[in-house]
Amino acid sequence: MTELLQGATRTEALAPLLAQGWTETPDRVAIEKRFVFRNFNEAFGFMTRVALMAEKRDHHPDWRNVYRTVEVTLSTHDAGGLTTKDTELAQRMDEAAAYV
Amino acid sequence: MTELLQGATRTEALAPLLAQGWTETPDRVAIEKRFVFRNFNEAFGFMTRVALMAEKRDHHPDWRNVYRTVEVTLSTHDAGGLTTKDTELAQRMDEAAAYV
Repeated sequence: MTELLQGATRTEALAPLLAQGWTETPDRVAIEKRFVFRNFNEAFGFMTRVALMAEKRDHHPDWRNVYRTVEVTLSTHDAGGLTTKDTELAQRMDEAAAYV
Repeated sequence: MTELLQGATRTEALAPLLAQGWTETPDRVAIEKRFVFRNFNEAFGFMTRVALMAEKRDHHPDWRNVYRTVEVTLSTHDAGGLTTKDTELAQRMDEAAAYV
């Protein structure tokens, strides 16, 4: 099982994500971000790229799509909080969003 | 603009959907359904088929995906409630869910 991020390791792993618009949930077990695209085509194109990455990693987002917006929540449920699975997927999602 | 469903027309259009697990939101401006698949592959496959239909119709769902579940809300915002755009998309979604 991937270990929970804690202490300085956690702070260091989250810093670049917080700088890119991710926020921690109040209970600190997840990170969230709202991606806004130009239209549904771009939003769902992003989701499709992320779906393939998520399936390959066997680590999936909790996400909501309303037309051109995609609200994402990432957490590692079997670890009870944030792990590198989340921070790495978050980074990949930012990269995928930059492609459109 | 597509007209709001009202009266007997509304009742008749909703009946088959309510029988298939759709429910009206308390404010009656939307219908909802929770689709449960066997895994993420099936859930996102369903979403991809629906995305293509939604884009073609220019009528999009509000939906949330968590691993193998997809929670859908349909409403026609510029009409302020349910129209045939919603009932038709709901029917197509049930058909798409049956393919997997």
